Amino acid sequence: MGGLGAGLMLASVGSGVSAAPTRKIGYAIVGLGSYATRQIMPNFAGCEHARIVALVSGTPAKLDSYGAEYGIPKTHRYSYADFDRIRDNPDIDAVYIILPNSLHAEYAIRAAQAGKHVMCEKPMATSVADCQAMIAASRKAGKKLMIGYRSRFEPYNRLAIDLVRGGHVGPTRLITAEHGFPIKPDQWRLDKPLSGGGSMMDIGIYSLNAARYLTGEEPVEVTAVESTDRADPRFRTVEDRISFLLRFPSGVIADCISSYSTGHNSYRIHGTQGWIGMEPATPYAGQSMTIRKNGVTAPRTPPAPAKNQFAAQLDHLAECILTDKTPIVPGEEGLADMRVIEAIYQSAAQGRSVRIGA
Amino acid sequence: MGGLGAGLMLASVGSGVSAAPTRKIGYAIVGLGSYATRQIMPNFAGCEHARIVALVSGTPAKLDSYGAEYGIPKTHRYSYADFDRIRDNPDIDAVYIILPNSLHAEYAIRAAQAGKHVMCEKPMATSVADCQAMIAASRKAGKKLMIGYRSRFEPYNRLAIDLVRGGHVGPTRLITAEHGFPIKPDQWRLDKPLSGGGSMMDIGIYSLNAARYLTGEEPVEVTAVESTDRADPRFRTVEDRISFLLRFPSGVIADCISSYSTGHNSYRIHGTQGWIGMEPATPYAGQSMTIRKNGVTAPRTPPAPAKNQFAAQLDHLAECILTDKTPIVPGEEGLADMRVIEAIYQSAAQGRSVRIGA
Repeated sequence: MGGLGAGLMLASVGSGVSAAPTRKIGYAIVGLGSYATRQIMPNFAGCEHARIVALVSGTPAKLDSYGAEYGIPKTHRYSYADFDRIRDNPDIDAVYIILPNSLHAEYAIRAAQAGKHVMCEKPMATSVADCQAMIAASRKAGKKLMIGYRSRFEPYNRLAIDLVRGGHVGPTRLITAEHGFPIKPDQWRLDKPLSGGGSMMDIGIYSLNAARYLTGEEPVEVTAVESTDRADPRFRTVEDRISFLLRFPSGVIADCISSYSTGHNSYRIHGTQGWIGMEPATPYAGQSMTIRKNGVTAPRTPPAPAKNQFAAQLDHLAECILTDKTPIVPGEEGLADMRVIEAIYQSAAQGRSVRIGA
Repeated sequence: MGGLGAGLMLASVGSGVSAAPTRKIGYAIVGLGSYATRQIMPNFAGCEHARIVALVSGTPAKLDSYGAEYGIPKTHRYSYADFDRIRDNPDIDAVYIILPNSLHAEYAIRAAQAGKHVMCEKPMATSVADCQAMIAASRKAGKKLMIGYRSRFEPYNRLAIDLVRGGHVGPTRLITAEHGFPIKPDQWRLDKPLSGGGSMMDIGIYSLNAARYLTGEEPVEVTAVESTDRADPRFRTVEDRISFLLRFPSGVIADCISSYSTGHNSYRIHGTQGWIGMEPATPYAGQSMTIRKNGVTAPRTPPAPAKNQFAAQLDHLAECILTDKTPIVPGEEGLADMRVIEAIYQSAAQGRSVRIGA
């Protein structure tokens, strides 16, 4: 997708629904971990077009407590064993999959086969093949598939995209994007069969996705270096740090960092006349932008949004369902990231640059 | 050189001369371009142990005007044709070579053969072979050879080294170092026969040298990607941007940027407990340090020095001559950078990681 096309699609975000929707889209939340229960579920309160109608969990106590808290009747609470029964529940329009990465594909495909639209957390899956199978399943079912790239619904990131694409600091020549945190031991993210990989799958994907949405281009070459202390019990099966360099068709290079041992949350777009910096860039809240242009460095603040990034993301899929439009971050967006992630791992393993696509 | 050795050597900088010197060391300035005339020559006024005693230039008008300004008699003004006559001038203890890069080796060697100590601007030369020849010539003459790495004499950079080596934010895991500026056309730096290369030789060397002095380690592997628009008339013979990843024996990765089309001057050392950031990191003046530790981000300011980085650098070689010590940035330091620079160019050209040394 070229810069113009992506820009046009972005412009439609939050522009409202042309035909006023008559009802709210009902979501089933699949997986009741901390991201689901602390970030996603509370934010339905800020949605115009979306509501929680069902819960799916392997832990009966969670179904009981969150069911009571959100007023979900017992008929709308599911275990994974009876997940496929969502087919028979007309209140469920869509599922939001917030499971360990390696389970995304199975549940997205089963949801599509049950006739439901799908929102799936990133990374979309743990392989290109799984991403392609998910896209095929949703297409066959005639249902929407969207990936949870929340930053695309966040005002600072949207302003950064607009400024960069508009040439605010001249043509882009170089981007730096860094994401990382010191990870705590003993969690599924450190277990490769569940996570599919280490920091790259979890937090490095923010650096990658930012480089893609800031340029509006697809990288044609990736060069990556990994550094992992395998004596650290956290990193027995997954990588710690990966630095990766993306080459885009325009000649832009993106220098990206993914880390499970150091704290990073920033990107900076360098044009010929200055730079646009975000630090932090992609937290749940508290983004900050600084622009350097003509030798002057100053903060920049977009107008406060009507709803936060979580509510806007949930509403976006709902609006797409109600008006039969394609989400700005469809399955193809998750697939595009996964293609690059596979190339990053290949480059790091082989010690050479890897071409992508064609 | 290990971290401990480098730290001990650093501790001796500016600690004064044990045997009080009885005279100031006389420098001949070789090359009267803007760095020599605007940055170096005015700063002799702040030196305790160094003074200008001679000038070398191919432009008679410059010899006249700067000779008059600095009170250099006509007997102490030289053209390049009669450069070797400095041998017969006992007032000249040392020469400071501030010529286009590809001329460094020739004049450093001729100066050593004339029995003079040498201060040489960075990059030391344009090849490992030239660096080795310069070291051999100075050694044969029994004279000092020092490279103009001024940041090693600058208080913020010295504080950064001390904090990092002392584990202030935990063990170092990752470093970013970025240097670049949009270069103006029509200058010797863009003419490969004179410069030996593009941004990497000129400004990227600051990123490389910082990664080495902050870790106190020598990189064992380099992975580099170049991006140059050869249609831009500035970049007909030299590179624009190079991003390079250095792997150190401890497992630290340094993500470095060199650019002739975008503005950068920063580095950040990421430890397991936070980071130490410098932006700007290596300007002539105005360094700024920020430290993030235990979730708190705050500025940090070292005590004001008795003399600035330029005077301290000039005095350091003078002190080493007067007390017969080895400079903290001897020819071997320039050679070490040049080894990595050759590997960076090789990696970028071949699209693969390149092992260094051993």
